[in-house]
Order: sequence, then structure tokens, then C-alpha cells
Amino acid sequence: MKKVCMIIGAGAGIGGNVARLFAKEGYHSVLCRRSNKKGLDHLVSQIHQDGNEATGLILNAVEPGSVEECIEGVEADIGLIDTLVFNLGAQTGIKNLHETSSKAFELSWRLATFSLFRAAAVVLPTMEKRCRGNFFVTSATAAVRGNAGQAAHASAMGGRRMLCQSLNAEYASKGIHIAHVLIDGLVDAPDTLGKIMGEPSFAQLRKSRGMNHDGLVLPNKVAETYLHLAKQHRSTWTYELDLRSFSDIAWWNHKSKSF
Amino acid sequence: MKKVCMIIGAGAGIGGNVARLFAKEGYHSVLCRRSNKKGLDHLVSQIHQDGNEATGLILNAVEPGSVEECIEGVEADIGLIDTLVFNLGAQTGIKNLHETSSKAFELSWRLATFSLFRAAAVVLPTMEKRCRGNFFVTSATAAVRGNAGQAAHASAMGGRRMLCQSLNAEYASKGIHIAHVLIDGLVDAPDTLGKIMGEPSFAQLRKSRGMNHDGLVLPNKVAETYLHLAKQHRSTWTYELDLRSFSDIAWWNHKSKSF
Amino acid sequence: MKKVCMIIGAGAGIGGNVARLFAKEGYHSVLCRRSNKKGLDHLVSQIHQDGNEATGLILNAVEPGSVEECIEGVEADIGLIDTLVFNLGAQTGIKNLHETSSKAFELSWRLATFSLFRAAAVVLPTMEKRCRGNFFVTSATAAVRGNAGQAAHASAMGGRRMLCQSLNAEYASKGIHIAHVLIDGLVDAPDTLGKIMGEPSFAQLRKSRGMNHDGLVLPNKVAETYLHLAKQHRSTWTYELDLRSFSDIAWWNHKSKSF
Amino acid sequence: MKKVCMIIGAGAGIGGNVARLFAKEGYHSVLCRRSNKKGLDHLVSQIHQDGNEATGLILNAVEPGSVEECIEGVEADIGLIDTLVFNLGAQTGIKNLHETSSKAFELSWRLATFSLFRAAAVVLPTMEKRCRGNFFVTSATAAVRGNAGQAAHASAMGGRRMLCQSLNAEYASKGIHIAHVLIDGLVDAPDTLGKIMGEPSFAQLRKSRGMNHDGLVLPNKVAETYLHLAKQHRSTWTYELDLRSFSDIAWWNHKSKSF
Repeated sequence: MKKVCMIIGAGAGIGGNVARLFAKEGYHSVLCRRSNKKGLDHLVSQIHQDGNEATGLILNAVEPGSVEECIEGVEADIGLIDTLVFNLGAQTGIKNLHETSSKAFELSWRLATFSLFRAAAVVLPTMEKRCRGNFFVTSATAAVRGNAGQAAHASAMGGRRMLCQSLNAEYASKGIHIAHVLIDGLVDAPDTLGKIMGEPSFAQLRKSRGMNHDGLVLPNKVAETYLHLAKQHRSTWTYELDLRSFSDIAWWNHKSKSF
Repeated sequence: MKKVCMIIGAGAGIGGNVARLFAKEGYHSVLCRRSNKKGLDHLVSQIHQDGNEATGLILNAVEPGSVEECIEGVEADIGLIDTLVFNLGAQTGIKNLHETSSKAFELSWRLATFSLFRAAAVVLPTMEKRCRGNFFVTSATAAVRGNAGQAAHASAMGGRRMLCQSLNAEYASKGIHIAHVLIDGLVDAPDTLGKIMGEPSFAQLRKSRGMNHDGLVLPNKVAETYLHLAKQHRSTWTYELDLRSFSDIAWWNHKSKSF
Repeated sequence: MKKVCMIIGAGAGIGGNVARLFAKEGYHSVLCRRSNKKGLDHLVSQIHQDGNEATGLILNAVEPGSVEECIEGVEADIGLIDTLVFNLGAQTGIKNLHETSSKAFELSWRLATFSLFRAAAVVLPTMEKRCRGNFFVTSATAAVRGNAGQAAHASAMGGRRMLCQSLNAEYASKGIHIAHVLIDGLVDAPDTLGKIMGEPSFAQLRKSRGMNHDGLVLPNKVAETYLHLAKQHRSTWTYELDLRSFSDIAWWNHKSKSF
Repeated sequence: MKKVCMIIGAGAGIGGNVARLFAKEGYHSVLCRRSNKKGLDHLVSQIHQDGNEATGLILNAVEPGSVEECIEGVEADIGLIDTLVFNLGAQTGIKNLHETSSKAFELSWRLATFSLFRAAAVVLPTMEKRCRGNFFVTSATAAVRGNAGQAAHASAMGGRRMLCQSLNAEYASKGIHIAHVLIDGLVDAPDTLGKIMGEPSFAQLRKSRGMNHDGLVLPNKVAETYLHLAKQHRSTWTYELDLRSFSDIAWWNHKSKSF
């Protein structure tokens, strides 16, 4: 039985590409997403056409018990989870404080922080029994700095980052590799950025970012770094790294402020 | 009518001391806490005995609508809030992941992050109309680094810090001073640390920290820094500072790790 | 004999204002600067006109032995140094890598880092014998993030910050308050910013930053925070804080980058 | 002609292992070190025995002009430098402030910061003309936090990190990948750690860190991450990552401090 790479948040961006690449490396990829069964089936069938193994599952992570059942079901029915990639975002665009409802604020946290905690609470003790496992979390610039219009998103992502550090402090020495992957830039992903921006703006953005759109973060390239993390020897684990396009400015830099 | 300093989370530690000092400076201090009406009355009567103004209110911040109503009530009945000190903690002691229930994890967030958001959402637009105000948030080491046994606390405090940065980015230029005060050490506070540790351990700890317990963070001294923040000219605002006892080790330092 | 506040780097900006304010508080202020004897005399005479004590000294800090002799001379001739404010900058404007000579790179380090080390190496052991003292260091945004055109400045300031953390780890528990004060914005200082920009640009900048220039960091207001640091009780010391104008953007924020 | 991977600081630890792995990938590795011609020849002959290309050069980086000449010589005589790995350390063990001479403090800076600047000033403009190149810098925990006994080391490494950020801000958009690799733990390296500790202590340490010493950072495993960095697509570059052994505690964590 193949070892499983389970991706929570598997659209046509980072999640789908990680699934495909890990399947090529011999994993059985389990792709979970909230909706768009058709899109999910398409991602799974691509992997099958590569001659590799994959399963698609519809999962609404904010529903009580859902993440827990899904993880347990995968372990029971498909195989032992070697690598869990938590890839749920919580970006809803720029919203000023007065535009941010309590409900929206809470939803961001449920998506970005609470469902991550619930996934960790189920899968890490299981991995601990086997003294091995990877638990990789996609994260965003907002995890390291708040900004105007980001009250909900930054707060949720900041919670995510501190949660990951806490998990790392508790589980690394038990043989479980926790990694917090900070995507510092716009990802060339139709299912997330494309939907937030709308198709015409997204198309224009892609065109403006170089011939091959490589001024955006290309999700199939991101997948290669996730695979590298999975291959790192336990004497030399990376907990946190940033990923950005060569032509983008790092989050800590400005064009305007001179000194 | 005096300007109001409203403290959400006013026990016998930082909150109560901030209330007393600001009252000495001419504010009407409004002390809010979840329970212990007797303790609250005692804090208020101390301020009255100083010859200064104070009001005590029972406030369960996690209850829906409670913070919002309380803030609106203070503005309507007592006076305009010049300074809001958000001083609710969310520390429940060290708990490993498998000891942390979903319910406890959520409660930490409701206390540390969500109720802060709700307070900000009500009070900052009000301050904005007056082009002035102070919004000071007590925070903890866990806001800047997660650790074993801190999944709930660090995640909630990390969310708090990123929320504060987002509020600062949006409101500083409107004349509202946001500050995130990082208490990096144990506070000599009977209502919080004393309760978590239990009386005998707390007494022993105090004894071990020097003649005047000043190896602990003394809450009446913390209040002086809050007052300084309130007095800073808007050309020279501090967004973040740390506070620790001289004899304590900064969170980024170790005794053991040599290189 | 009065206790001494010695300022290394005392022009008409932060240094001169710290000197004046501490003299008002009863210190004998010792103002040290590299050149402009006339400007120095003017600052000293202002303090005398306030009815307070001050001495002016010409000090070229990069000269071997100079800082050491100067500190020893002050202790021998004027009084015991209670507070040393290290206020030397190393900003030379924006220079790309190919415009930055090895000589300029080295000079930035000699000013910002090495002379600070030399001052610390003399004054901290002296303070240690008395189990008290303040050692406050003015620092800049460049200490926490490098940027284009800042190779020399950021490298020198980054070295300064890590040096201060090392000193703090070694001396705080000995009763010496080390503080690293991060000025995150342009200071309304004719002797530094005025000279780098040139008079007409500086005049225009001041005009553009509000009626009272308080979109710039006002150095007499900065002095108040230094004084607060000097008054903090040792149970509640701040090691690091930032200072910026309300209308400025924090170094970690951007206007342009949306997510 | 093969593309060159030049390693400045090539002992039997990270440097030598990077050289060997990049040679396996088809690079001509150029190993530079200050002394121990015999050790250097041994590293080079190992690569030759693998059937791959390498050259060894003696280079005293702190000597004026040395780094510059060496880089120019490699480009002229061996091949175009595709990847420069700057791997010079500046660790001299724990030294309190009063044990740290000005000379030692300056030497740390010359090794860790100034020679890096000099290397960058020569090689980056050359890479810029080709619109491509990798400039990878090995760094240490001391680059992100100072500590007692680390005044010289932390100051030099902090300068290194801010310099790298400045170089990244200037050169990433020109197609040059700058990376700052934070080694957060003891490396199983006889030429550096072995020498600082002495043979018997080093042998004992290795024994205490697990059957395969993988409680230490294994340098041949580190090399794999450098190779991954060199393979990252420019849409997805990592500027900074940390590397530590699974059984080690991250620099921001403590065992002792509870809250």
C-alpha cells in the first residue's frame, strides 16, 4: 500500500500541483476541497492519466467533525498519511475594519486557524505512533505582518503561524516534520486569486507579469519545494521558508520609503 | 466631564494598576472584569479613596454583544473614551496538544482575539470621529513565538498581534494611537498568575524573585509605561515595546544553547 | 556631584534634545560630537540658559582610543555616568552596491557598530561595579530590514542591533538597562537629515509634513521617551521600542502590495 | 565549459559537501579555504575520484584584494561563476564582553560581513550582465538574535543578514537568487566545531546526539538544500530558510520558561 499525501485545500493552484507531483513520486494523493466536484474530478483524472494514484474528496473543513472524520477515513480506507499538506486559505480581499463583520472575522479564523488545529489534533498523534510524518502548512505574508484591510486575514494567519511554531516545538523531536511555508506574493492560481480578482483582472495581471507569468508565484514550482521539504533528512529540517517571484519585492521592503 | 480610560480586564494586576494611575492623572477610569464583584468594588474604592474617579462594571467579553454594549454604555453614561486598555489574557497554563480540547482552543481565541476585534470595531470608528484616542493592548511572549504546550495561547496571541498591526496600519494616520505591549515575563498578579499557579506556589515564586519581587514584572510599574504611551506626542508614537524584569532572560535568549 | 548623562552624537536633533531634557531633570549632560564646535557651544549654552548643567566635548569616535579616553575623562573629571546615550548615525543616503566603496562600507561599520562596541567595553564594566546604569542606543529601520541602496547602512545597523541584544543578555541581570530605540521614520533634524537632503529639499519636506512638521519624528518628543526609559523600574524594563509619526507607515507595511 | 560553483570557506563541513554535491550535478566546484592545503587537496581528490571536476584554492579572505582577485581569476581561468556559496564562519566560542578585544571584534566583522560585501561587490555585477546567478550565504542563529558571550559573533552575523537583505532587494529582480541560510544548531563538522570544542569533547558530543549523529546538523544533508535552492525556478525563490536537527530546539523556544 502506498503512503498517502493528503492535501486539505486542493484547487488548481498549489494544492492540485502538490498532489500531482507527490503522486509522481509514488504517493497516493488525496485531494480535499470544499466544492466544485467537477474541478476536483478533473485534477484527479489528470493524475490518473499520468499513471499515478489519487482520490478526490469533498470536505467542508469548517463543519464540526468534518476534518477529523475525513482524516480517519483516509487512514482506514486509503492508507497511512505520510504527509499532510494544509493548504486552506482565508483571503477574502481587502476589507477595512468597518467592512469586516464579526461573522467574516470568525470565518477567517475557522478556515485558517481552527481547522488547522483540528487537523493537527487528529493526525499528529497518529503520526507520533509511527515516529514519522510531514505536516506542511501553506501560509501567507499576512502571517508575519498585519496591514490595512487585513484585520481578519492577518489575525487568522498570525494565529496559524504561532500554532505551527507550537506544534513544531512539541512534535519535531518525535520525528514529525512541521513546516510553515510563507508564500510572499500572488499565486498564479485560477481557483483562488482568479476568483477574488475576477477573470478579466486576473487575465490582465498575468499578462503584466512577464511572458511566462513568472512574476507571479507559479504553483507547479511551489510543489517542488514541498517535495524537497518531504525529502529533507531529519538532521536538517526546515521549519520556515519564504517563496516569492524574483521580480517581486519582499514583504519587508518598500519602494518609496528612503531611509 | 472627565475623559475616560476604559480597561477591559481589570483585576489586581496590570488592569487595576493602570486604572488607578490614569485616575490619578485626571481620567475617569472604568474597570471591567468578568467576575469577582467584590474584588472589583475594592479596586474602585481604592481609587475613590485616592480622591479620584472610577466606575466598575461586570463584563463577560465572550458573550455576544457584551463588549459592544458596554463600550456604547460608557460613552453614553460616563464620558468619551480617550484611552481603551485591552487587558484580557488567555493563559490557561501549559497544555500539550492532546490535552487541548477544541472548546478550550476556541475559548482562547474568543478571549484574546475575537473580543479584541469586537472592541476595536466599536470604539475605533468612534475615536476616528474625534481624530484622537489611545487603543493599548496588553500582550504576551506567546504573541511572538509559539512553544510546546502553548497551541491555544500562542495561536490566540499571535492573532492578537497581527490584528493590532492591521488596526495600526488603518488608524494611526487618523490620529489614533495603537500600541501592542509585550509583557515578556511573569507578572506579580494575584488574580491571574496567582490563580493559575495556586497560592502556595505563587508565594514561593514571589519569594524566590528578590526582596521586592522585582524579578517579577510589577504591575504598578507597568502602568507607568502605559501612561507614558498615552502622553507620547503623535509625531513620536510607539507601536510595540517589550517589558521584562532586569533579572529575566529575554524570550529570544537561552541559557543552554551555546552558539 | 550630579549624575551624568553622556550623549555620543549630540547634534541639534535627538542628541541635543536628550541632553537638554536630562539636564532639566537634574543630570549633568555631556554632549559629544565630531565637529561644529560652534553648534556644540550653542547647544551647551541653551542648557546653561535653562539654569542647568552641561559640558560639550569634541569627539571623533572612529579614531582609535578616542571613545575610551573620552568616557574615562568624563568619569574622572565630571561625574559618574548614569546614562550613556549612543546616538551616532551612519546614514549616508541611498547608494547602490556599485556606488558603495569598501572604504564607505567600513566607515559605516566603524561609526554604527565598532564605536558602539568600544563605548560598551569601557562603560559597562564601570556601571557593573555600581550595579546600575542606562545604556540607550538610537537605532534605525535599517537595523531590522535591509533594502536596496542600504548595503552599508543596514549592515552596520543590523550589527548594532545584534550587539545590543548581546549586551542586554550579559548586563541586564547586573542592573544595567540596555535599550535599543528604533526610529522608524525621518527625524526633523537639521544637522543630519537636513545635511543629507540639502537645505531646500529639507525645507520642502518639513512643509509637506503637516503644520507642525509632526509627520516627521520630532526630536524633542523623542527625548521624552528616552527619559521615560531612564525612569523605568528595573522590574519593568523595555529593551526595544519603535518610534514613528502617526502619519507615517510602519516599516513592515506597504501601500501598494495588496494581499 | 562547465558552469562553476565557487565555495568560499570550504572545509570538511558544509562547504566541502556542497562542493562535492554540486560537482556531481555537473558543476566545476572551486573550493577556497584559508589554510590546510592537505585537507583541501583531500576534498578535491574525493571529487575527482567521483569522476567530477573541482579545483582547490588557498584564499585568505580578510587580506585586502584577495577575494576580488580570486573571483576574477576563477572567471578568467576556470569558468563563469553560476553559484557562489559564501560559507565563512566567524565563530570563536563564547566570550564575555570583557574577554572580547577590539581586534577580535573587528576580525569577526572582517570575516563574516566585510569579506561577504567584497565578494558581492565583485561577483554580483558580473552575474548581472548574464541576468542570472546564485549567491547563497551560510548563516547562523546569531544573525537573528544576540546572546551573552556573542557580542562579536552576533554583531558580525546580524550585519551579514541585513547585508543579504539589501543585496536581495537590489539584485533579485535582475535575475540573481540571493539566499540566506540560517543554520540553527551545531554542525557535525570536524574543521570548525571540532576545532572549537577540541577533539575529545567533539567526539563525546557526536556520541550523545543519536546513533547517526543526526541530532547534529549533517553537512552532506545541508548540501541537498543548497542544491534545491539552486534549482528553484525564479518564480518561486526562497530568500531565507532555517535548518535544524529534528531533536534540537528552535532558537525562539525554551525548555525552561513556562509562559
